[in-house]
Amino acid sequence: MTLSPGHELGPTVGMIGAGQLAQMSVAPATALGVRFKVLANNAEEPAALVVADTTFGSKDDPATVLAFAASCDVVTFDHELLTPDVMETLKNCGTPVYPSPEAVIYAQDKLAMREALTKRGIPCPRWSSVDSILDAKTFAAEVGYPFILKTSRGGYDGKGVFFIHSESDIVTVLEHELPVGSRWLAEEKVNFIRELAAQVARSPSDQCVAYPVVQTTQRNGICAEVIAPAPDLAPEVAVMAQEIALRIARELDVVGMLAVELFDTGDGVLVNELAMRPHNSGHWSIEGATTSQFENHLRAVLDLPLGSPRASAQWAVMGNILGGGVPNLYSAYRHVFARDQELHTHLYGKEVKHGRKVGHVTAVGSDLTDLRARVGHAVAYFTGEINE
Amino acid sequence: MTLSPGHELGPTVGMIGAGQLAQMSVAPATALGVRFKVLANNAEEPAALVVADTTFGSKDDPATVLAFAASCDVVTFDHELLTPDVMETLKNCGTPVYPSPEAVIYAQDKLAMREALTKRGIPCPRWSSVDSILDAKTFAAEVGYPFILKTSRGGYDGKGVFFIHSESDIVTVLEHELPVGSRWLAEEKVNFIRELAAQVARSPSDQCVAYPVVQTTQRNGICAEVIAPAPDLAPEVAVMAQEIALRIARELDVVGMLAVELFDTGDGVLVNELAMRPHNSGHWSIEGATTSQFENHLRAVLDLPLGSPRASAQWAVMGNILGGGVPNLYSAYRHVFARDQELHTHLYGKEVKHGRKVGHVTAVGSDLTDLRARVGHAVAYFTGEINE
Repeated sequence: MTLSPGHELGPTVGMIGAGQLAQMSVAPATALGVRFKVLANNAEEPAALVVADTTFGSKDDPATVLAFAASCDVVTFDHELLTPDVMETLKNCGTPVYPSPEAVIYAQDKLAMREALTKRGIPCPRWSSVDSILDAKTFAAEVGYPFILKTSRGGYDGKGVFFIHSESDIVTVLEHELPVGSRWLAEEKVNFIRELAAQVARSPSDQCVAYPVVQTTQRNGICAEVIAPAPDLAPEVAVMAQEIALRIARELDVVGMLAVELFDTGDGVLVNELAMRPHNSGHWSIEGATTSQFENHLRAVLDLPLGSPRASAQWAVMGNILGGGVPNLYSAYRHVFARDQELHTHLYGKEVKHGRKVGHVTAVGSDLTDLRARVGHAVAYFTGEINE
Repeated sequence: MTLSPGHELGPTVGMIGAGQLAQMSVAPATALGVRFKVLANNAEEPAALVVADTTFGSKDDPATVLAFAASCDVVTFDHELLTPDVMETLKNCGTPVYPSPEAVIYAQDKLAMREALTKRGIPCPRWSSVDSILDAKTFAAEVGYPFILKTSRGGYDGKGVFFIHSESDIVTVLEHELPVGSRWLAEEKVNFIRELAAQVARSPSDQCVAYPVVQTTQRNGICAEVIAPAPDLAPEVAVMAQEIALRIARELDVVGMLAVELFDTGDGVLVNELAMRPHNSGHWSIEGATTSQFENHLRAVLDLPLGSPRASAQWAVMGNILGGGVPNLYSAYRHVFARDQELHTHLYGKEVKHGRKVGHVTAVGSDLTDLRARVGHAVAYFTGEINE
């Protein structure tokens, strides 16, 4: 867009991907007065519905991504699932890319991640690369059944993760075709008491901020509920989790938001997965923190001083709305809003399909039991599980 | 936009006008998952910079406005300055228009407003319509000099308001050409101790919520600082101000946000002006209230249950950034954000011109003195009054 002489706007942040994470970046980009553009596959993607400057094209096509990058002052992502070709292209595109392709590899490839963390002494579940049935059997002999086989690349929301209960499971699972560039990774099944997530933001100037550590609950491999901060978490464990996230951000040179998903084993934490972007475990920060994860991601990739990650209320509870029996989510507002004047909703404008993340709700306040009940009710109403 | 079958989005809210009020409506429209479109004059207007669905055309052209309204499920405004022709067109456009043209007249025409409020016994400064020098002299004889002459229509941010110190001022001012449809209105100069604003939201179902009453400080006729809630305001005066705003909303059938600007005389309040839309005195609510004025305006015009207007912190302070010596506001971020990790900024993307509202900052917390100092510093830095 051409502006009048003297009309100066902030720099242009280009986000590759146009899902709900890109969509939720619109509010802070607008407030900051920076230009925000997205690369979308089609006009129905959540960010394409609302972003004025949307480029349509495939994020898997190096030429498309290169042209997009050339029109931006900085490039970032709303998802790590980019092809090796595209990542290679971005290394030499002439525009700063944050997180860098060299860092993103550790969010794309779980085997590379396990190697990098283990080398640095960061606590992980026992793991092994698996290139054969024999490798898997050897690992099983070490850790026992059940254990987990994962594709090193391409998995998300529980996809590409298999629980192995027997030798015959090994044979069956290893027959699955691997995504391009992927290998098999075996991991012990951790007897965790709950899951946690530690989020930090880091800028190219190496400024870092750490958000309160949250408790996440998954159902069928998909995040269902997040409580910030994690209830009854010993301060030394919270600090340990934050330190792990800060070390990973610095040592892997992550710029932007980093989410470290963790297992709380009761006597410490183990790293489960990494995400280098705003993350579902941080949606509570829109209403529950002084600076949301979406704003701090933008500030970080722009190398601006980061905003305070401090919680602005005692508790925040976020519940994901998964596609269910209500095709028109908007129709639920009359009931949901009338019942709860303080509920915050985010509907992403996605077509409602069974089990798909189509929105989330957040409540903040001082009574955790009440917040969880209210969020749980709203989620159940949006999914059609209850109708009153 | 055509979506796949089964892909259901919320209704379309169309806003006539594309200034910063429309721009700040983008965040809640996105979160609510409703479609939001604006009618903009040109691509440099704040909302046109960021809204995917922007229609370009003149808001003064009835045919343009009619076509725009036909593409929306509900029409609203980011400014009341619409021509009588356009308002007449909107009365019969077939799409709900909120606030209705019949209500908006009281925000457009100060004489109509004074008549309507006085008829209902709502406290106003002494006033009189003025159609001649003699009328003005008669009014002067009643209230004394100085008093105020205003054009009944077309004024904003102090424009169209004249202080009259003598008979010769009367003659000079009445020589000004009146805006179309405007008359002269004389008002006493109120010896107020400060200015207040009471904001309410009202839905077509007659649900109403009242925001905390705020203190506003104007400089050169433009709002400079807002403190929420107004410090040291006697509870009975706060309730009186809220009741006035609620009565006006109900009795004038206002739908959406209503801002009532008030003079605090020390022993009560007098109504100064009305605005039927989100208002500068409510920008603090984005970070300082459970539901922002922008979200409640949308909920109201959509006839959804309104969100809680409760303050989420003890104090919120908002400072307007007026165009000054810094053409590139973005360049101030490094300093401003490094100095204050908890500051919230909104830059509207407008060309920086002297005295023009180009953004605002907000801080929330428990120490009012500290908040005012921080907001004041940031504003002074953005305007170039200080450089450290």
